Amino acid sequence: MAVQKPSIPKGTRDFLPSEMVKRTYIFDTIKKVFQKYGYLPIETPAMEKLETLLGKYGDEGDKLLFKILNSGNFLKDAQIVELPEESNKLAMQISGKGLRYDLTVPFARFVVQYRNDITFPFKRYQIQPVWRADRPQKGRYQEFYQCDADVIGSKSLLNEAELLQIIDEVFGSLKIKVLIKLNNRKILAGIADYINCPDRITDITVALDKLDKIGKENVIAELAGRGIPDRSIALLQPVMEIEGSAKDKTVFLKKLLAGSEIGAEGIKETEVLFGYVESLNMSSAVELDLTLARGLNYYTGAIIEVKARDVEIGSICGGGRYDDLTGIFGMPDVSGVGISFGADRIYDVMNQLNLFPGTVITSTKILFVNFGKTEAAYCLKVLNDLRKQDISGELYPDAVKLKKQMDYANARNIKFVALAGENEIPKGKVTLKNMDSGEQQLYSADDLVKILKQ
Amino acid sequence: MAVQKPSIPKGTRDFLPSEMVKRTYIFDTIKKVFQKYGYLPIETPAMEKLETLLGKYGDEGDKLLFKILNSGNFLKDAQIVELPEESNKLAMQISGKGLRYDLTVPFARFVVQYRNDITFPFKRYQIQPVWRADRPQKGRYQEFYQCDADVIGSKSLLNEAELLQIIDEVFGSLKIKVLIKLNNRKILAGIADYINCPDRITDITVALDKLDKIGKENVIAELAGRGIPDRSIALLQPVMEIEGSAKDKTVFLKKLLAGSEIGAEGIKETEVLFGYVESLNMSSAVELDLTLARGLNYYTGAIIEVKARDVEIGSICGGGRYDDLTGIFGMPDVSGVGISFGADRIYDVMNQLNLFPGTVITSTKILFVNFGKTEAAYCLKVLNDLRKQDISGELYPDAVKLKKQMDYANARNIKFVALAGENEIPKGKVTLKNMDSGEQQLYSADDLVKILKQ
Repeated sequence: MAVQKPSIPKGTRDFLPSEMVKRTYIFDTIKKVFQKYGYLPIETPAMEKLETLLGKYGDEGDKLLFKILNSGNFLKDAQIVELPEESNKLAMQISGKGLRYDLTVPFARFVVQYRNDITFPFKRYQIQPVWRADRPQKGRYQEFYQCDADVIGSKSLLNEAELLQIIDEVFGSLKIKVLIKLNNRKILAGIADYINCPDRITDITVALDKLDKIGKENVIAELAGRGIPDRSIALLQPVMEIEGSAKDKTVFLKKLLAGSEIGAEGIKETEVLFGYVESLNMSSAVELDLTLARGLNYYTGAIIEVKARDVEIGSICGGGRYDDLTGIFGMPDVSGVGISFGADRIYDVMNQLNLFPGTVITSTKILFVNFGKTEAAYCLKVLNDLRKQDISGELYPDAVKLKKQMDYANARNIKFVALAGENEIPKGKVTLKNMDSGEQQLYSADDLVKILKQ
Repeated sequence: MAVQKPSIPKGTRDFLPSEMVKRTYIFDTIKKVFQKYGYLPIETPAMEKLETLLGKYGDEGDKLLFKILNSGNFLKDAQIVELPEESNKLAMQISGKGLRYDLTVPFARFVVQYRNDITFPFKRYQIQPVWRADRPQKGRYQEFYQCDADVIGSKSLLNEAELLQIIDEVFGSLKIKVLIKLNNRKILAGIADYINCPDRITDITVALDKLDKIGKENVIAELAGRGIPDRSIALLQPVMEIEGSAKDKTVFLKKLLAGSEIGAEGIKETEVLFGYVESLNMSSAVELDLTLARGLNYYTGAIIEVKARDVEIGSICGGGRYDDLTGIFGMPDVSGVGISFGADRIYDVMNQLNLFPGTVITSTKILFVNFGKTEAAYCLKVLNDLRKQDISGELYPDAVKLKKQMDYANARNIKFVALAGENEIPKGKVTLKNMDSGEQQLYSADDLVKILKQ
């Protein structure tokens, strides 16, 4: 076969060891907090049946699913189509599986499938890659990890409060300063009621969501363009102009939305949640942002979005409450609430702000230089004693030039190099070189353990 | 949309929390040992270009690749084929990516692609799922994890020795008693030379590999069936009958294969490797098994296979040396050696022998019962103090009947339940119930920390 120049599909990534240790640091931090709050791990397969995935993410989402070609003679049950126009029809005949698009729909499927094996309220976390056939661009990948925590089977707002605590603790541990933005889908519905456009909530929220980016004038223009009547837009203006604390805003909204039952419910929930936030003494700022909508249509209550304060980047965590996610799989009326951390953006933020602790990047503690068979055999014994004490170390496998071995130690960030030759071996000792200071000294094997244990 | 009965594709699996914690225990144990010996983590994408994967696993392997349908109008460059006979031709026109089949080929691709970024000898580990469109059956899945460690860029047999140590330490940590079987591809080539069938090494090894299972007579029949001449089979008989220690076997082989250069080389390597094994004081038995061949054609030196001693199951770890894996990607003559742990079989062995430590299965330490708003607010404060001390705990989110909350604690294996009502709150205390002993006692929040820290 001809020699291939190796490469990977567009939008996918390899991770070198230097990246892996940093990513692992992020995942481990998130995992530890999830566990501390009682969330249990699950995993689902990369491939789901297409029927599980289709229709859950809108038409756009359906197009972004990676479909897997059926195995064997995949055309045997296919009808001839007029190529190439009817490719979608053919796709469904020759593909029955797709790669998971997010962790939420597989989780809903999981909850229904194992409803008799799990205890409700079920608090689960899941950290796995997802795949989307999006056009690759800077910061957008076709394969990326999601880190989700959800509680399903409880309507209590204590769950929302707990997820906010988790957000606060995760970003506190990672030393990322964040602003947590809250809103409530019911308030948005109340606003739509109030301006007499109850059916236009999607148009209204899509436009409102852009207020930060494009400004009030342009939002008004967009609303008009979407066919919202002028009188409704006029009613909406004060909402766009509300300033102040969450308390100020809810007091104001209470009057404004007095006529909307769902609006009043949303305000009540928001008050309770902010009450918890106050009593919980969180480090992160939490703000009520009435323009926050988030794209996903399945949210029915609280909406959560987290932004880094010191880096201009999209949201690094988000979530909300959904009242009927499992309905489509035959289990109606089960309320849930969840959040999802975006590991890739968190990685970018930490890299930019230089927040990874130095200890994350370290390698093995010690490299034994290989001077030849006899010396290697001696070193291997000393090294194994160190390993028994859980000290990580290596013996260079080949008796090549000393410089090459020292270069290896440097490239690998190994702090100590041990040398043992005719001076050391008869005395049962090794010369230890500190690669940072350049200092070197003779030690017995026992002393070596003590020094490296530090 | 109609209600769907949820299920997952055949041959794939969901993992419930009780399974996840056990699997994580295995992965963490393996990872810790890899790191101790200086192996660095990498990850590669689930999807590789089909050209990277095709032709690397034989015709059988090519058929078992999961192919991903190109996005969008995937038929636009496809030629009309006579359906359904020419499905393979069409497959290559409508699919450019496949799911990774193992970790070795992606690793070879990775090494060549990043040759200027990595330091050789490169010791890497990789723990990720792989996908094979195999017919699902008991213990064989379409998605499963591999845990690989490889050293590339060094011909030293110290690498083989180190990998044996890793095997010994991993299974020692997991408390699985194993037998490590070794062989050398060069010895097998030498045997083929000796019986005057140098070109028939594959037929010979495939038949020899079955000696354990089907016995000598049947192996002889199979060899004859594969067209090996009777005189060659007669010469092979003493090889099938060799018994004794590795030393006995190499002494015997030295005479037998004296005429084969490659055979002599294989014996020499085996002697050196067994020399290391002796000096390393490993706990596992290591045996020279001349019938060991392993299916993969890319091995060129040592071959390694590990069996559990107390459970009848296939190999739970395997590997070997390959001299030119990266050649196909344009980087010839780079020798490597690696091993792969089979996490699924290890899981089965540990489950059967009841080897998972009790601590693996535990959950959060404490559940606070929810009696209503005021009590919940009080408990939340106490709970948060515990969490600050890194004690995991939960507050039941809803003020439902006590029995339901206690059932939850039981189902979740939570050892302590805390109750705080009108008796406890005014005194700043909580009643702690030990769910194992049934004992309950009044404690201050400070004492709670002490008890739960134990």
